Amino acid sequence: MTSGLPAIYPLGIVGAGQIARMTHQAAVKLGITPRLLAEDVDDSAALAAPSPTYGHPDSLASFAESCEVVTFEHERLDLGLLTRLEQSGHKIRPGARVIRAAFDKLHQRRILQNKGFLVPAFAELRGPDDLFDFASTADWPIVIKSVRTGALDERNIWIVETAAEGLRVLAENSRRQLMAESYQAIIKELVVLVVRRPGGNARCYPVAEVVQSDGVCQEVRAPAAIGPRVATEAKELALRLADELEAVGVLAVELLLTTDGLVVNELAARPHNAGHLTIEGAPTSQFENHVRAVLDLPLGPTWALAPAIVTVNVIGGYEGVDPANHLADALAVEGAHIHLYEKRPRPGRKLGHVTAIGDDLDQARDMARRAEAALLGRRPW
Amino acid sequence: MTSGLPAIYPLGIVGAGQIARMTHQAAVKLGITPRLLAEDVDDSAALAAPSPTYGHPDSLASFAESCEVVTFEHERLDLGLLTRLEQSGHKIRPGARVIRAAFDKLHQRRILQNKGFLVPAFAELRGPDDLFDFASTADWPIVIKSVRTGALDERNIWIVETAAEGLRVLAENSRRQLMAESYQAIIKELVVLVVRRPGGNARCYPVAEVVQSDGVCQEVRAPAAIGPRVATEAKELALRLADELEAVGVLAVELLLTTDGLVVNELAARPHNAGHLTIEGAPTSQFENHVRAVLDLPLGPTWALAPAIVTVNVIGGYEGVDPANHLADALAVEGAHIHLYEKRPRPGRKLGHVTAIGDDLDQARDMARRAEAALLGRRPW
Repeated sequence: MTSGLPAIYPLGIVGAGQIARMTHQAAVKLGITPRLLAEDVDDSAALAAPSPTYGHPDSLASFAESCEVVTFEHERLDLGLLTRLEQSGHKIRPGARVIRAAFDKLHQRRILQNKGFLVPAFAELRGPDDLFDFASTADWPIVIKSVRTGALDERNIWIVETAAEGLRVLAENSRRQLMAESYQAIIKELVVLVVRRPGGNARCYPVAEVVQSDGVCQEVRAPAAIGPRVATEAKELALRLADELEAVGVLAVELLLTTDGLVVNELAARPHNAGHLTIEGAPTSQFENHVRAVLDLPLGPTWALAPAIVTVNVIGGYEGVDPANHLADALAVEGAHIHLYEKRPRPGRKLGHVTAIGDDLDQARDMARRAEAALLGRRPW
Repeated sequence: MTSGLPAIYPLGIVGAGQIARMTHQAAVKLGITPRLLAEDVDDSAALAAPSPTYGHPDSLASFAESCEVVTFEHERLDLGLLTRLEQSGHKIRPGARVIRAAFDKLHQRRILQNKGFLVPAFAELRGPDDLFDFASTADWPIVIKSVRTGALDERNIWIVETAAEGLRVLAENSRRQLMAESYQAIIKELVVLVVRRPGGNARCYPVAEVVQSDGVCQEVRAPAAIGPRVATEAKELALRLADELEAVGVLAVELLLTTDGLVVNELAARPHNAGHLTIEGAPTSQFENHVRAVLDLPLGPTWALAPAIVTVNVIGGYEGVDPANHLADALAVEGAHIHLYEKRPRPGRKLGHVTAIGDDLDQARDMARRAEAALLGRRPW
């Protein structure tokens, strides 16, 4: 039997985690089944998609030959390869330049500073001397970061209180490129998702507020509980940044609201965990708008469909509980939107998310939390 | 490389058209990738799903061995085989009894009449004498129907004005089992979708109104423009019918609102075209609730999310226009929700649908119609 699959796919997605899984679904809705470049048959998106290509992201060149447009669910990519593919005429969206700005935090800080965006004081740490130099101008604690995000289970950020602690981090991570940043007194962590077409047409979603714990995003709330002035400033900043970078697709701009104002914390050049709530909470999800943008199709509306939208991530614990075994209890939480990724449970691993919508933040949050507790086999709180 | 696919799938879906495609997506959201039994590699759902099994629905027995629960996107099935599978312990949902009531219209009429539901006067037509007998008690025109829905492109219903016309239909369809029904003076055609779990727990969606043309559903509007008394009666009737039949999953009850009251017109024991608007128009889509019901999981809320929700089907015309080539124009209709099924265009074939949501029926309808016109390469009207 001959295959019904096309010779050239309109869209290829590099990576096959939950971001790719949901992007895949959004494309299928539009009648555009994408091809996936997956690393493992157990990858979340590979389980739910037809005939993925299996290979390391470095095998991108041959994959790109089979797709009209290539997009990405992560930034752990060979930038030289991406640049060469772009130069040879492949539609790589977003392009290598944007991916580098998301991937290489030192480079990102330099670009942002040059363009006039507020960033924390920072310095590259090539050795102990750089740390001492930086500490002479900044107050303790100091933030040490890996310049490039490492493998999924690698730690990428340390908050050090003393020079001794800092030197230990340097010694233990001598093979990684590190940087220092001044510690920010954070009032709130915000995320603005911008979606932008190649020609510059762009929209942004309502500002969301994220609540982290142990460096993992636990909860996202939209719209963020901030005043209209800060909200407007955050959106304008994110749209300007997307323009400056010539981003294509979703650009997630993570901002810190500090006593000094809005500071750019991180960038992600792809659909983002903070945007999962757009599936039920916006007329067009971040995934569909990402697909539209990278294919240079008109963008859909991005407003909030309710006064309060909350997403709680379902994160694997040490108990080894599998949320799939508790689906019935979670679905019994009337009105909670349950998403599971078919991933094997591991401590700290994102296994799914729950979104709840309501007129009131506490009510939505409570509903999402009850479903999440059920999925993890905990008593409702 | 070993496959990441499970040995036993929690859910199997027989059929791979657009109903299966959307049911598949709803299951994937819950972390349950189903297996499909497809007939062709070009089938809408087969294009978007991993590793479908290919085979005729009669090869259901071996397919059922690989699934914990089997459900269906159509009723063109071997009922004897379904019954044997049920008797040997397979979870066939809905069961053979419900599928027969949807599939065999004569049997359906008899059950409904026995249970006290209002149906049009009807009779089996084994030959001309039966037609003359029926005509002696009913007024012309008379409706002649095929007892079993035939292949997708076969005509299944004729409205005949005279005995001569009726005899011609009988002669031209001598190989098919036919029945006669009294013609109904229809005020509106309504659909109530009930979703029911094996234990009897059931919910129904708001009553929808369908607009047919050439025997094909063109447009669906919810909630239907009917008074609260009729709406309540329609929902109670549908819920009672689902209980009487012990339906599992979605049961679509097509009703005719006539001057005599509500008459049952057709049943479908699966997600239904009139329920596509539940994807954006309800907290839980008919597809997700079908998956929940057949897996005996708690049902989600079914209320309408807006005062006016309209779905317009995108139906292939004689021009051979492919909606996929006009996606950009359709997506430019701000707020329209576009769904394409990746099907090859053919006259009369459902290629996709557009849903629009609003405060007002005319506004939602206009938006959906503009996007549909764009998809078919027509000027907006």
